[in-house]
Amino acid sequence: HQLLVLAGDGIGPEVTESALKILEIMAKLEDWQVEVDHAAIGGAAIDQYGDPFPEATQQAIDRSSAVLLGAVGGPKWDNAPRRPEAGLLDMRQYMGLWANLRPFEMIPGLEHLSPLRHPVMNGIIFRELTGGLYFGQPRGRRFLPGDLEVIDTLQYRKSEMTRIIQLAFQYAKDHGLTLTSVDKANVLESSRVWREVTEELARQYPDVPLSHRYVDAAAMDMVLNPQNYQVVVTENLFGDILSDLAGGLVGSLGLLGSLSVAGTPGTRGLFEPVHGSAPDIAGQNRANPTGAILSLAFLVGWSWQEHDAEHLIREAVTQTLSEGPRTVDLGGQATTQEFTEAVGNRLK
Amino acid sequence: HQLLVLAGDGIGPEVTESALKILEIMAKLEDWQVEVDHAAIGGAAIDQYGDPFPEATQQAIDRSSAVLLGAVGGPKWDNAPRRPEAGLLDMRQYMGLWANLRPFEMIPGLEHLSPLRHPVMNGIIFRELTGGLYFGQPRGRRFLPGDLEVIDTLQYRKSEMTRIIQLAFQYAKDHGLTLTSVDKANVLESSRVWREVTEELARQYPDVPLSHRYVDAAAMDMVLNPQNYQVVVTENLFGDILSDLAGGLVGSLGLLGSLSVAGTPGTRGLFEPVHGSAPDIAGQNRANPTGAILSLAFLVGWSWQEHDAEHLIREAVTQTLSEGPRTVDLGGQATTQEFTEAVGNRLK
Ligand SMILES: CC(C)[C@H](C(=O)O)[C@@H](O)C(=O)O
Ligand SMILES: CC(C)[C@H](C(=O)O)[C@@H](O)C(=O)O
Repeated sequence: HQLLVLAGDGIGPEVTESALKILEIMAKLEDWQVEVDHAAIGGAAIDQYGDPFPEATQQAIDRSSAVLLGAVGGPKWDNAPRRPEAGLLDMRQYMGLWANLRPFEMIPGLEHLSPLRHPVMNGIIFRELTGGLYFGQPRGRRFLPGDLEVIDTLQYRKSEMTRIIQLAFQYAKDHGLTLTSVDKANVLESSRVWREVTEELARQYPDVPLSHRYVDAAAMDMVLNPQNYQVVVTENLFGDILSDLAGGLVGSLGLLGSLSVAGTPGTRGLFEPVHGSAPDIAGQNRANPTGAILSLAFLVGWSWQEHDAEHLIREAVTQTLSEGPRTVDLGGQATTQEFTEAVGNRLK
Repeated sequence: HQLLVLAGDGIGPEVTESALKILEIMAKLEDWQVEVDHAAIGGAAIDQYGDPFPEATQQAIDRSSAVLLGAVGGPKWDNAPRRPEAGLLDMRQYMGLWANLRPFEMIPGLEHLSPLRHPVMNGIIFRELTGGLYFGQPRGRRFLPGDLEVIDTLQYRKSEMTRIIQLAFQYAKDHGLTLTSVDKANVLESSRVWREVTEELARQYPDVPLSHRYVDAAAMDMVLNPQNYQVVVTENLFGDILSDLAGGLVGSLGLLGSLSVAGTPGTRGLFEPVHGSAPDIAGQNRANPTGAILSLAFLVGWSWQEHDAEHLIREAVTQTLSEGPRTVDLGGQATTQEFTEAVGNRLK
């Protein structure tokens, strides 16, 4: 297995290091040969190459069979001509990662983190990742007499919608779950096409219970009835918003990992924690590496098809979170290293 | 005072009738002369005129000094060539209502409705209402070989941003509150301009504490720390999503009224409950008229500059909600009429 690590900025290096320790233990247990390569992304890449997604990193990606990312961004690069986040978007497009899967669940023993009175939820958001307002053309400014006009374009091809919606349908079917498709079909033309595509595909999946929700109603209803959201599928920006909202419901982004993939299991993907680079606590051995370790679990399961290993890592993380020790953000006292060792010990 | 009532669909007629009863009482107390006119909107207008925003309604608007709306929409018109919601959008543009103000607060005694453990919040969302993805051109479909492309356009002029952001700054200043501006400036060009405009205006309001949030982070943080959101300003679609989210945090859209205005107090506006047409309970005397009555309060305060009356109505509603009787949706047993009478009796 050829792993590329893009540690990135802030706490990125610490949390990916934790994940690598877990990988080392797993590799021993399962007798894997793993080659680990490193490259630069985001702010770190701007500092080193003047480009948040440099050529060298593209080549390293081409040589790898999976990519583990830490985090990108920080106030240091707020005024860079191309900001760290632009590197992330370029990489998503370069790697053709059109599906972003974001599981959110309430881990037993951590209910107190949730702002909800009844924190019951176990869902996954399928977010389209290489279309919509993020990449549509034209975009830009135009000077008018005494004014300025600016546009962004929400652009989709039907085929781009079909593949992500189909992936979500198939997942719901395989796991016996309900599917919620989120759009704004009462206003947006793109959402009308989205809804038509969903209805078309629904005929191929008559056994998957499907509901449609407008994005505003979904935001409200996820807060009121999070347990109803098992599999959610939506376009890029709505998925961005709703998956952070789901993180809020769980009570901590630090607990969430994610998969960005090209749809076919067994192929290269990008796996990253949902949290940001948290520059304020970087380098202090205080960061919670759960998101990175879970992302590693998704990586071995998806790109390397090591399903048992994925399951073992996820179990070890969940148990450690439930029983402790826990990191400071969760009200515990463990350092990043101590938490990582505790997860590692459970694996062994 | 010249009031136009657009009762609309579903529970719209019932809840606007309640508001009118309160207006009658208020008019007697304050010795107002009020002329009440009625016209058709939404599904009702499709049935009557084949158009969700007919000419006759436009003329009635022109004659009025304020418009009270019930609700529009329903499954009956799902396949109409122009749906009820299109009438609402046309009306917003026709009336030039670029500012949508959506207050959300936790009413004492109703905390149990909120899904939150610590439901503390008292905020208002300033949503831009006549720009962005809702109205941008071009929009539509284009056939490609073996595929279909669809676009919507997120379009803003700087002047459109300036006026809504300034309105929110002024409100925050007048009330000694903090301001949160929500955008997606790490991805969208329009959001970058939004942020520049906000920074420019901030210089005129050095005494208003300002923060910027990306829309995804805002969705998460509103769930975790709703008390931090006092005045929020954002573009059309983000405002649509976040105001419904705020409704979810309060626990019921039935409790919320809203103002859609052209920015200048004392001018014509459109005032409507945030809830939908709820066709399932229409005509049963079960709907909660709180949103409509609060919208009436906003109407008399904004369009007619009757601030004492606004205050009296709001107080009467809050007290009735706190002490009962309450409608079924809030766990009470009162009918729409009984609740309305209780509010009316408090006014007298
Ligand atoms: C950093 C930003 C560009 C990114 C996005 O909006 O996609 C982030 O919010 C995410 O969800 O991964
Ligand atoms: C009905 C719909 C077009 C409308 C909107 O999106 O503006 C509604 O959700 C609202 O918030 O008033």
